[in-house]
Amino acid sequence: MAKRRIEVVFRRQDIPPETVAGRACAVIDVLRAGTSAAYALAAGAGEIRLFRHVNEAREARRGFGGGAVLAGERGGLRPEGFDLGNSPTDFAPEAVSGKTLFFTTTNGTAALAGCARARFVAFAGLVNAGPVAGALARRAEDVLLVCAGTEGRSSAEDVLCAGVIAGKVGAILHAGGAGGAGAAALTDAALVAVDFARFHQENPRRVVRASDHGMRLAGLGLGSDVDACSEVDSLDVTPVLRRGPLRLVRGAGAGAEEG
Amino acid sequence: MAKRRIEVVFRRQDIPPETVAGRACAVIDVLRAGTSAAYALAAGAGEIRLFRHVNEAREARRGFGGGAVLAGERGGLRPEGFDLGNSPTDFAPEAVSGKTLFFTTTNGTAALAGCARARFVAFAGLVNAGPVAGALARRAEDVLLVCAGTEGRSSAEDVLCAGVIAGKVGAILHAGGAGGAGAAALTDAALVAVDFARFHQENPRRVVRASDHGMRLAGLGLGSDVDACSEVDSLDVTPVLRRGPLRLVRGAGAGAEEG
Repeated sequence: MAKRRIEVVFRRQDIPPETVAGRACAVIDVLRAGTSAAYALAAGAGEIRLFRHVNEAREARRGFGGGAVLAGERGGLRPEGFDLGNSPTDFAPEAVSGKTLFFTTTNGTAALAGCARARFVAFAGLVNAGPVAGALARRAEDVLLVCAGTEGRSSAEDVLCAGVIAGKVGAILHAGGAGGAGAAALTDAALVAVDFARFHQENPRRVVRASDHGMRLAGLGLGSDVDACSEVDSLDVTPVLRRGPLRLVRGAGAGAEEG
Repeated sequence: MAKRRIEVVFRRQDIPPETVAGRACAVIDVLRAGTSAAYALAAGAGEIRLFRHVNEAREARRGFGGGAVLAGERGGLRPEGFDLGNSPTDFAPEAVSGKTLFFTTTNGTAALAGCARARFVAFAGLVNAGPVAGALARRAEDVLLVCAGTEGRSSAEDVLCAGVIAGKVGAILHAGGAGGAGAAALTDAALVAVDFARFHQENPRRVVRASDHGMRLAGLGLGSDVDACSEVDSLDVTPVLRRGPLRLVRGAGAGAEEG
């Protein structure tokens, strides 16, 4: 049986346009949209509609009526008139259960839009690395892990998460799990990410705290967010991308995430 | 004193056009152009003129007369009519001492051209990571390390070398060497590269052999090249870029590489 390829790109700008359509993807945005989306769906939000611009989210929410929550950030902070910012622990059941979220985050939304033609797209942070890896392993396509990055640069916390997910997918496939799908072939970038994650496996939080984005959030008084975003596998949920409009819904477990 | 920034980009396509002009750069191409250039200058070549295309190198060499050596590769192999391919150990004193090299390598040349506006540009492999790090530490500018990569993808061996160099520059600055230039601030990508290199510091050759490009060269019967390219600090030479025409010359040691 052919080996399944596991590829990593270190920035969303590096998504290979010629091959993305045939892949099973995970977009990784540890700080904080990937983590917040996992919290929101785990807390019972119905779906998360995605917007790049604050005004787009505001207008869409206005036209929707009741049962809506407007959430997101600019420069790390909650925009004026928004119900929630982008602190993962704000997405609690009492705030979001049964609601439709209107969520704006520049970088994560752009990275998801860049993968929208793929067969399957999950949104990931460290908190749900395991469930996302399981969902990818159950697919048949080659895997593409996209680190969202920050302002066009690679983010250490996203590379760490890509390494954790790539390692887990590889381990599942090598063990013959997920229907005995066979072994995996890691690209060079995936090798780098996996070894980076191994180097820090005893204390992944240290990477997230030492990252450029982690230090910036701590400087805004959001250090507790950084710690929440560092808890590997604390949530059993896989946010899956749907199109028209671009939104995330909860994947329903083994084999049920088909796009 | 302000910390000097040490930045890494994982592919030559990611060179930041808005900031490169003010930086001290090293372009990293472990397999094999960065290694071959170090071998050639260590063996006494006068200078290495760089060409992206085989025919450009051929024509320039034709117009030059005696004392010229035509070298390079396409698909890993020596083009027809060339004196040398791109095997580092072919660049021995008896072949290149006192000669002008006309050298064509698509990826390394493109990466160097992408940094040509920088204040200082060295060309590096693992074989001369230490001398290149020393030259960068002696400069005053922020440091940019550019992994050449392969066909638009990150190469593990280049990331490894970037990590080795970034670690050495950081160690020199933290020790207050190079004129007491103060400490260094690593970007996230530099942190990833440094930790990847630390993870493999006992056996860097394993990374080069396991890399996509390393396996491809071994498949062409060039495994001994891969091993030669893996020998950290085996050569005490710093190839430095000059413009008009684009070429590499030997940097003359402490403080003498000013561009």
